[in-house]
Amino acid sequence: MTLFQDPDLFAARHIGPNAAEQRRMVETIGYGSVEELMDVAIPEVIRWHGTLDLPPAVTEAEALAELRALASRNTVATSMIGLGYHGTHTPGVILRNVLENPAWYTAYTPYQPEISQGRLEALLNFQTMVADLTGLTTANASMLDEGTAVAEAMTLARRASKSRSGVYVVDAETLPQSLNVILTRAEPLGITVEVRDLAADGLPDEFFGLHLQYPGASGVIRDDAALIAAAHERGALVTVAADLLALTLLRAPGEIGADIAAGTTQRFGVPMGFGGPHAGYLAVRAGLERSLPGRLVGVSRDADGAPAYRLALQTREQHIRREKATSNICTAQVLLAVMASMYAVYHGPGGLRAIARRVHLRASQLASALRGIDGVTVVHDDFFDTLLVRVPGRASEIAGRAEEAGINLRTVDADHLGISCDETTTVAHLEAVVRAFGGSGELGGTATDFPEALVRTSEFLTHPVFSSHHSETAMLRYLRRLSDKDYALDRGMIPLGSCTMKLNATAEMEPITWPEFAQLHPYAPASQAAGYETLIGQLEGWLAEVTGYDRVSVQPNAGSQGELAGLLAIRGYHLANGDAGRTVCLIPSSAHGTNAASAVMAGMKVVVVASREDGTVDLDDLDRKIEAHRDALAAIMVTYPSTHGVYETGIAALCAKVHDAGGQVYVDGANLNALVGFAKPGRFGADVSHLNLHKTFCIPHGGGGPGVGPVAVREHLAPYLPGDPLVPGDNAVSAARHGSAGILPIPWAYLRMMGPDGLVAATGVAVLAANYVAARLRNHYPVLYAGNKGLVAHECILDLRPLTKATGVTVDDVAKRLIDYGFHAPTMSFPVAGTLMVEPTESEDLAELDRFCDAMIAIRAEIARIEAGEWPLADSPLSNAPHTAESVSADEWEHAYPRSVAAYPPGVDRAAKYWPPVRRIDGAFGDRNLVCSCPAPEAFED
Amino acid sequence: MTLFQDPDLFAARHIGPNAAEQRRMVETIGYGSVEELMDVAIPEVIRWHGTLDLPPAVTEAEALAELRALASRNTVATSMIGLGYHGTHTPGVILRNVLENPAWYTAYTPYQPEISQGRLEALLNFQTMVADLTGLTTANASMLDEGTAVAEAMTLARRASKSRSGVYVVDAETLPQSLNVILTRAEPLGITVEVRDLAADGLPDEFFGLHLQYPGASGVIRDDAALIAAAHERGALVTVAADLLALTLLRAPGEIGADIAAGTTQRFGVPMGFGGPHAGYLAVRAGLERSLPGRLVGVSRDADGAPAYRLALQTREQHIRREKATSNICTAQVLLAVMASMYAVYHGPGGLRAIARRVHLRASQLASALRGIDGVTVVHDDFFDTLLVRVPGRASEIAGRAEEAGINLRTVDADHLGISCDETTTVAHLEAVVRAFGGSGELGGTATDFPEALVRTSEFLTHPVFSSHHSETAMLRYLRRLSDKDYALDRGMIPLGSCTMKLNATAEMEPITWPEFAQLHPYAPASQAAGYETLIGQLEGWLAEVTGYDRVSVQPNAGSQGELAGLLAIRGYHLANGDAGRTVCLIPSSAHGTNAASAVMAGMKVVVVASREDGTVDLDDLDRKIEAHRDALAAIMVTYPSTHGVYETGIAALCAKVHDAGGQVYVDGANLNALVGFAKPGRFGADVSHLNLHKTFCIPHGGGGPGVGPVAVREHLAPYLPGDPLVPGDNAVSAARHGSAGILPIPWAYLRMMGPDGLVAATGVAVLAANYVAARLRNHYPVLYAGNKGLVAHECILDLRPLTKATGVTVDDVAKRLIDYGFHAPTMSFPVAGTLMVEPTESEDLAELDRFCDAMIAIRAEIARIEAGEWPLADSPLSNAPHTAESVSADEWEHAYPRSVAAYPPGVDRAAKYWPPVRRIDGAFGDRNLVCSCPAPEAFED
Repeated sequence: MTLFQDPDLFAARHIGPNAAEQRRMVETIGYGSVEELMDVAIPEVIRWHGTLDLPPAVTEAEALAELRALASRNTVATSMIGLGYHGTHTPGVILRNVLENPAWYTAYTPYQPEISQGRLEALLNFQTMVADLTGLTTANASMLDEGTAVAEAMTLARRASKSRSGVYVVDAETLPQSLNVILTRAEPLGITVEVRDLAADGLPDEFFGLHLQYPGASGVIRDDAALIAAAHERGALVTVAADLLALTLLRAPGEIGADIAAGTTQRFGVPMGFGGPHAGYLAVRAGLERSLPGRLVGVSRDADGAPAYRLALQTREQHIRREKATSNICTAQVLLAVMASMYAVYHGPGGLRAIARRVHLRASQLASALRGIDGVTVVHDDFFDTLLVRVPGRASEIAGRAEEAGINLRTVDADHLGISCDETTTVAHLEAVVRAFGGSGELGGTATDFPEALVRTSEFLTHPVFSSHHSETAMLRYLRRLSDKDYALDRGMIPLGSCTMKLNATAEMEPITWPEFAQLHPYAPASQAAGYETLIGQLEGWLAEVTGYDRVSVQPNAGSQGELAGLLAIRGYHLANGDAGRTVCLIPSSAHGTNAASAVMAGMKVVVVASREDGTVDLDDLDRKIEAHRDALAAIMVTYPSTHGVYETGIAALCAKVHDAGGQVYVDGANLNALVGFAKPGRFGADVSHLNLHKTFCIPHGGGGPGVGPVAVREHLAPYLPGDPLVPGDNAVSAARHGSAGILPIPWAYLRMMGPDGLVAATGVAVLAANYVAARLRNHYPVLYAGNKGLVAHECILDLRPLTKATGVTVDDVAKRLIDYGFHAPTMSFPVAGTLMVEPTESEDLAELDRFCDAMIAIRAEIARIEAGEWPLADSPLSNAPHTAESVSADEWEHAYPRSVAAYPPGVDRAAKYWPPVRRIDGAFGDRNLVCSCPAPEAFED
Repeated sequence: MTLFQDPDLFAARHIGPNAAEQRRMVETIGYGSVEELMDVAIPEVIRWHGTLDLPPAVTEAEALAELRALASRNTVATSMIGLGYHGTHTPGVILRNVLENPAWYTAYTPYQPEISQGRLEALLNFQTMVADLTGLTTANASMLDEGTAVAEAMTLARRASKSRSGVYVVDAETLPQSLNVILTRAEPLGITVEVRDLAADGLPDEFFGLHLQYPGASGVIRDDAALIAAAHERGALVTVAADLLALTLLRAPGEIGADIAAGTTQRFGVPMGFGGPHAGYLAVRAGLERSLPGRLVGVSRDADGAPAYRLALQTREQHIRREKATSNICTAQVLLAVMASMYAVYHGPGGLRAIARRVHLRASQLASALRGIDGVTVVHDDFFDTLLVRVPGRASEIAGRAEEAGINLRTVDADHLGISCDETTTVAHLEAVVRAFGGSGELGGTATDFPEALVRTSEFLTHPVFSSHHSETAMLRYLRRLSDKDYALDRGMIPLGSCTMKLNATAEMEPITWPEFAQLHPYAPASQAAGYETLIGQLEGWLAEVTGYDRVSVQPNAGSQGELAGLLAIRGYHLANGDAGRTVCLIPSSAHGTNAASAVMAGMKVVVVASREDGTVDLDDLDRKIEAHRDALAAIMVTYPSTHGVYETGIAALCAKVHDAGGQVYVDGANLNALVGFAKPGRFGADVSHLNLHKTFCIPHGGGGPGVGPVAVREHLAPYLPGDPLVPGDNAVSAARHGSAGILPIPWAYLRMMGPDGLVAATGVAVLAANYVAARLRNHYPVLYAGNKGLVAHECILDLRPLTKATGVTVDDVAKRLIDYGFHAPTMSFPVAGTLMVEPTESEDLAELDRFCDAMIAIRAEIARIEAGEWPLADSPLSNAPHTAESVSADEWEHAYPRSVAAYPPGVDRAAKYWPPVRRIDGAFGDRNLVCSCPAPEAFED
């Protein structure tokens, strides 16, 4: 893969090892070239020998020029469409130092909490902000968007409700896209959704949940306290989708009796991005916190008893619970949640209230002016930011005039327009709107009053963090201080198996903050999004080419949603064929837990297929399971290469067997980076896959989100792909048609700059790097599982169980000790307990690969000293890891090993060492004493 | 100054203390309000009671929208103008992680080397790169631009030459703007510049220096070895302005005998920015290194004997030598030098060579095609990137056609065009140029050969740093690792008296990397720079309003150049009045050393005026000096408020006395931030000032540059302001008409977002903060100098001399101990040896001000323990400061104080402590053993 001599070619920058390094690596594992290695590693049964039909690579400058041309075909209009997406000013200090800063965007999910305290603190701020504003006890660390948050609220209500009814009553004021997501998610679960005009129709007799929108989609503010009380009397839980900015002025959902609140934090400084990504939120009253889906940050303590943050209640997580999981959500929108929380930190309670008051004033001024125009009726008296305006027969004509003036309104129907004000709305905008209505009247001068019962009187954001960083200087330093606590790709390798932590190139990231991509409302007129439509169309086409499928939808805004979308397509296909009985989904025991959870959400029954000792699917057991469920067989879900990081040769037979029995084959695309250019799931037998654009296609992990999980299908499943969330009756797995469209320039740029040759090279080097690590470490740690000639695919599993048995040293100890060496740990105990799974990716150069291997070997030598009785296990550098600067410079030192061994293991750059801010964290303590909002500053006093 | 309730108003973000904090601060110093404080602090004799006639403040979003509108009036054409400014691709990883990263751009000049190792390493890379490419021994840490670098080469040659001739022979191939700067600088020094067509006219008999351009302005490459030898025979030194990219293929100046090389590194990844800022360079052969002007980074060692970097030979500096200084240069272009060096690190020698080869290929292809067109002559056979093309009578017509195709050519005269290729030139560009010439011929396919004697055969950039960071991942980590070693404003306060380290807001920084500001050639047609012209015109007008002058020129690209321009204006005025004998410049003994150096460069004789014990100018001595030099009096240069940080009341009398004697009054604007909105130098008696936009007007210090030093004058001096460097005969103090135009959006945005009220508030809070610090520290350290009622202006001087006398603890010890507390030291021993000068600025909030005061008080308590004999001075936390993480965690600890005292003094955030990478650095050792390029990696082995 020594194609790259031109310094302008991006592939030479993306791929870590240069030609000479690749030669040395290939030699180390005993091959002549990467090509030869790949010929042996990849089974011929799946091998595809063509050349990817993608445009040839362009340079970074050329790709950026093309993206600028695409961007220029989008129109940045002033959006007054509302519906949960609002204009907002991203404070520059947050834009540049979070969204554009690799220290934040290249971080991984905070599963290693000792090296994630910065973003965990930011997420705790987020949770505190949401809990305070909603008036509820506990909020999680964010949801994918408002639509999916509301759907999760529904299923949470169902689990928690004592009612045996299957009916979920939904307010007719619910946002239309949220309703579509609710309906899509309710159907396979057997939930009956009843949409009601609650003011007119009241409540039915039996239902397990009531969902309200506050303020309503029409902008109306109602006092729902009586409805909520009535619902509670009938044993139902009440879920409320609430606008957080409105809640700075309006009584909180928790204060009027809601059990669960859900929504979005987009308008807290996160650009609309043509639909996403933004951080949704979910909050619950006391008693429900242990039922919350998604991630929850909590306070615990470290080995010194100091307060420390970590993800709480991880045993709830779907990857542990599998088919018993209550949700398939396994990610959050961390990067966006950090931005939203920092917006609240920067503005503080007073600043947020001032923004809300001005937004409300603008809406009031507009209402006053519109009321002065003949033939124009402002429907509601009580509103926050949105007006429903009746103009019989003239809605599109007026919307057209507004569009000509650069302003988008919402055309509700032929007679009604919706107009939303936001933080960016100016008097000039209002005047232009008034003119579009044919008026010339004066704007009103004062804000309307809210109904007295709905005026917020309670305080919020009282924690000092929301009042300490209001100057830009203070904010900048707070962001730096937090990010300095964390370890991200900008410090060193993150060799996480199955997570593919590779380069997120600057050229890929630059376009996403250009206004032409960042500032579009997802429901803007299509004519204003021509650049986006082209970009998305090309991206979907390129992804189809890479995977060998016929159609791709980028709507799913996380891998989990891609899985669900794929399984719903299979479900739709079987239903359309009259095969309503096909509901069994076969899943190998080695599968990622999300697979099973998704299958359950798609209305399927999970049947587990055994794995052989070598990690491959047991084809005999597969035969048995197919036989047992032949008529009910809906699908099989497998990961390829397997979660063990091996190219299984049985995959073609597996596909054939399932097809023969009438089932569909779902290949989880989590490991697609081991296939690109060498094999295509859509060609070797699969019917559907989801991809993880934040793995193979370079969307940064963002510290735990955003992700994008497109679904790819063969033609026969295409009719069942997600539709338009705004079109009644369409399936929808996220609230926007193109999901997290705002970050799709990233994979577009990656594919455009790599070209067919670069992609092939990347795959080859990824496999080369994994085999190089396996070769260097095999004599020190057994490497579990391998395919042809002992080769692994793109990752390798190091087995620590023998060492653990012999010495008591655990994977945890090794993982934490790696921090002292300046590394993020590999994946721990997945897919096999007691092991570490290493995925180096193609982006790490040989020096860094060697630094990692050297560290692992040095740690093995440390374990040997424990084995030899030189150090007691309980007081070894491993058991005490990680070591903070404070701990190694303590006045007293009574350990069995010297400070220098603790602080500066071999290979560490003494002048540039990364110091974790806390020692090892006691997770269980925090779970027993659950605290999920900011602790008082006194907790940190010595 | 409690004007700011609107969270959108920028002033509330720029100013650190909020209203409540300001009240507490005002109370602490015993006043009722900031207004009252200012009424007492500022002498009525200078007080100006009007309201600044500036547009009212707009929000950040509004300012950015206005800047976008201005930007859209600039046209980004493809530049083939050349003349030392070339299109270049800034690698995204460098753009985002250096130029857009506060860790780099908010750093100060590395005078505290222990906390500046990152940028010192980057600068050492820069010096190594320049030395290697030029084939000379030693390069400095950058110059302001090519024009000033060449002028400094001339004066260096004069100093070093043994010839007694006053003649400097200048190659007719010299860039026209460089020639203008040379002429401007030569005249007051009495140097005779002889421009010669060397090929035709040869050399004169006597001259002290010969200046060559390589390749020439026409693009020609000549073998100058014989000329150089001839010059040397006549005792002259040879200076060569050389293109670094060309030097990757062409024999280096040092290899053909040059003594000095100068030029620019702009095309190494630094955007053209309509003229700047970029890093110029200056390199010398062995023997001249101790005569280099500007900053020089060298290798030394720290207290543990480890290699460490610091500025070398600081005693050469102009601020020590005053009128004996050989240059007034006191800054470098650090931020840009870092970018250029990182471009070389990222591409490596092979990559640079590949880029140069492609550039040369493009020029060759074009030459071949143009030669095929009737009536078109390519003048030179030997060229690198630039062609001189003869088209009798048709030059402008062809240039016009090219412009229509989006390409700018250089119109040399009616018959000649210059065409330069660069890294960004594509085949499509060449084809468009050929069409503009009326051709349709084929482009050539091969590069021309260089004259054999000029082919480079020597290696360059052989140090491993230039071959280790070629993947984006590796580069990102290298940049992070370096920046993590440094302390900048993003970590905490930098209370440097006279340096004004205040907020550099994101909204101010964002526009400078927009293509419409970044990608313009300084000599692009005026019609393409309409946005720039408007922005610069407005900025000059606003600065005139703020200072009370009539005319402002932003051409000077550093304060030193502003001083020179101002003094040259005075010189021009006197000459025009027939007062050629007015050459005495009075300078108070307390003045910044640059003042005297600039006066000498402007052909003046410095006469020192005594200061009184209270730091004010001794008006009696002034009378005496005026009397002694009445007929020769050219000017007086004073700083106001004085360098002692005091508002002197005698300023009006001083101005009157000098004016009465026929002299002009120069007020150094270094401390303008204590006056804005309250007093105007142009109104209280001064005739000319220079400003420091990197102080008062928020251009970031960039780790030691860029600076911008506009000169402001009253109407009678306006005719003598700098002119257009391209117009023969015009004065020029920098190579581009608007100097460092590319960063002028920063002060524009600052003024636009602050508005008159915000500026007044900033001045008030800056003075408040200095007086607050003085009040809190007065009982612990004597505060030197004060004005009315004991008030200081915007900074205060803490006198450590009594403590030093009593205990031996030095200002150095306190400064280094502040690092352990997490601070950058205040200014050391300026303007008074043995003192610390503290300037908190308006941007620090009360928490940070208190943290600093608490640290200073805690350090005083530590000194008390030395006084009390508890700790020996030689083994105290002060003398051993700063403490590295390595030193406090060493296995052995035999100090008189515990580790915890060393590592975690009171107030330090234990989980987020900044650790310096080295211990105290021994500067003298490095000066004795001068090493100014990258040390071999072995030097760092334990």
